[in-house]
Amino acid sequence: MKIISAIDSMKGSLTSMEANEIIATVFSTGNYFVEQVAIADGGEGTVEAFIKNSQGRSIQVACHDLLGREIMAPIGWLEASQTAVIESAATCGIHYLDFTETTHPSRTSSKGVGEQIEAAINLGAKRIIIGLGGTGTIDGGLGALDYLGVRFFDKRQKRLSPQGSSLGAVASVSTEQLMVDEVEFILAADVKSPLTGPTGAVYMFGEQKGLVTADLSDYEASLQNYEGVLLQGSPSELGDGAAGGLGLALRIFLKAQMVSGFELLAEEIGLEKRIQTADLVITGEGRMDNQSLQGKVPVAIGALAKKAGIPALAFVGLFKGEPAAFAEAGITAVIPIIDQITTVEEAMNKASENLTRSAERVKALLELTLPTDN
Amino acid sequence: MKIISAIDSMKGSLTSMEANEIIATVFSTGNYFVEQVAIADGGEGTVEAFIKNSQGRSIQVACHDLLGREIMAPIGWLEASQTAVIESAATCGIHYLDFTETTHPSRTSSKGVGEQIEAAINLGAKRIIIGLGGTGTIDGGLGALDYLGVRFFDKRQKRLSPQGSSLGAVASVSTEQLMVDEVEFILAADVKSPLTGPTGAVYMFGEQKGLVTADLSDYEASLQNYEGVLLQGSPSELGDGAAGGLGLALRIFLKAQMVSGFELLAEEIGLEKRIQTADLVITGEGRMDNQSLQGKVPVAIGALAKKAGIPALAFVGLFKGEPAAFAEAGITAVIPIIDQITTVEEAMNKASENLTRSAERVKALLELTLPTDN
Repeated sequence: MKIISAIDSMKGSLTSMEANEIIATVFSTGNYFVEQVAIADGGEGTVEAFIKNSQGRSIQVACHDLLGREIMAPIGWLEASQTAVIESAATCGIHYLDFTETTHPSRTSSKGVGEQIEAAINLGAKRIIIGLGGTGTIDGGLGALDYLGVRFFDKRQKRLSPQGSSLGAVASVSTEQLMVDEVEFILAADVKSPLTGPTGAVYMFGEQKGLVTADLSDYEASLQNYEGVLLQGSPSELGDGAAGGLGLALRIFLKAQMVSGFELLAEEIGLEKRIQTADLVITGEGRMDNQSLQGKVPVAIGALAKKAGIPALAFVGLFKGEPAAFAEAGITAVIPIIDQITTVEEAMNKASENLTRSAERVKALLELTLPTDN
Repeated sequence: MKIISAIDSMKGSLTSMEANEIIATVFSTGNYFVEQVAIADGGEGTVEAFIKNSQGRSIQVACHDLLGREIMAPIGWLEASQTAVIESAATCGIHYLDFTETTHPSRTSSKGVGEQIEAAINLGAKRIIIGLGGTGTIDGGLGALDYLGVRFFDKRQKRLSPQGSSLGAVASVSTEQLMVDEVEFILAADVKSPLTGPTGAVYMFGEQKGLVTADLSDYEASLQNYEGVLLQGSPSELGDGAAGGLGLALRIFLKAQMVSGFELLAEEIGLEKRIQTADLVITGEGRMDNQSLQGKVPVAIGALAKKAGIPALAFVGLFKGEPAAFAEAGITAVIPIIDQITTVEEAMNKASENLTRSAERVKALLELTLPTDN
């Protein structure tokens, strides 16, 4: 019996790959073949997931983080498709912030993403997938573009420094030195927000990146100025606000196409066809609720299983929803992994044991020999 | 598909019958037939369980509780076998105690059990099943025997009053007025303790019935005196200590035979044969741990399922044990009904909802259409 295990990460406790590995271990006895599909949403873990799913390899390159400190960042190299996979969070991740004045968004830069792109080009990539999740910068991608040769000037034609504080002063842009023509760029993101406005990069995500309430209107005005110069009257798009504006920057100057992290991954590995050859799909996530029905990854996987006419199970940390609605969406049964009195902290710490026990119970139930007339 | 649902009570939250009813409701859609078996251990719920399992009826009779207050107690009447079922807890239940001096064991009496037996005889019972669990008395059954005509005297041939305080003074017994010859008595108990000694009625159960630590050695000595008079040198038996000594009293004077509550019930309803005709057994209890393997009801049911070659599932409030050991014992899968972060109190209050959700998940898993080659 072929099982596809494609569990999303359970944030704070298990990565997608760790969760899948548990399923593979539990179903290693008996007549099962478990095919693992690592799930990624464009944030941390995206490179690793693509490497795992496509038998790629990881290449470490020297870059700078959002404060200009030297770091190493991984590039995922998929030989068959000459594709490089990078994640913005490796250089611009929110984990670099210490929420002091030093890491205020006006002082940080996405320069490192430019370095990652350059390194990928130097590897000979025909196609570069850029994961946009989990960043701590709001520089509109100015730092990355500057590194790649785009020049930003103020109204007196003075070149601006590549960081968030320059956004309000940008008056003109030169792309004469930008040289990335031969490469196809794909942006993998879960966020479909505009660059500015109430659901944009400042008002939706600014405070978690270190802006204080008093900063918001000034920072929003600066970003609106930057947006106006880049768009030159053409319409903004949902997704421009991803990764503090890297969405807009890479769309405009690299002709990058934005797709959902999961759709990209599903297409890369032919997930729909793989599911058609399976007998059972196992998925899951940390918290599943009725909002999950609006397109979250496990439900998207459930939909593929339903289309293929096979059952899908979802292991979850917390379930707050209607089983019938999920069954209708293709998730035959939702199985919470908590099975005793516990605290949130303990449940997170013991997610591995909890998932193991749940999977073992499910395996025992699947193996029951019962009449087939029900 | 035929399912036998025989879930033991989940103390403090669900009775056996309530739990079985939930299973029947969940499996009421689809091609299932659920046969409910109410479980009883000789304590509260025993009469109800026998009535439910054997289509008997309940007859209320006027009696007195352990303090002599008028109450009504149910007798279960099983017409086919001319059997009456009574439970000691109805008259001598621990729930009558308020743990003041008033309800101290020296002041309480099992007289009510005598009344229940008399009422059962008057109904024409050929056989009387007496459940011994859940009592609050430690009068050695003296109260019940006295009511039925046995007379207890002190060393000056003075008749003693039928309560705990008389135990130490008993010097001789007269059974001339005892008239219960034509009836078969069966004692249903889970407790297999001797009347006296470290695992007896005083040292094991005295404090939960209102003895204080300082009482124990005197009370034990009184009970030893009583035991000596009744046994007249014949050996004591395990089970004599059940229900504060009712075990010994009814064994000696009514020739009662003691059996485990579950074995009796299983025999009464032909449980083993019924399981042989089923496809799946569902059992369960409040807390299941490795001690449960030492003969607790769900494991006994699992053993019958194993013997019949069919799977058994156990729904439990809390599971602390090795799934493999339970599988070996016939419980194919143990399914804790807790499925989220909760407190003990909330879990107890919501046992009904929790069991419902668990059973629905199991049903969904059982209904998966999977290849049968695993």
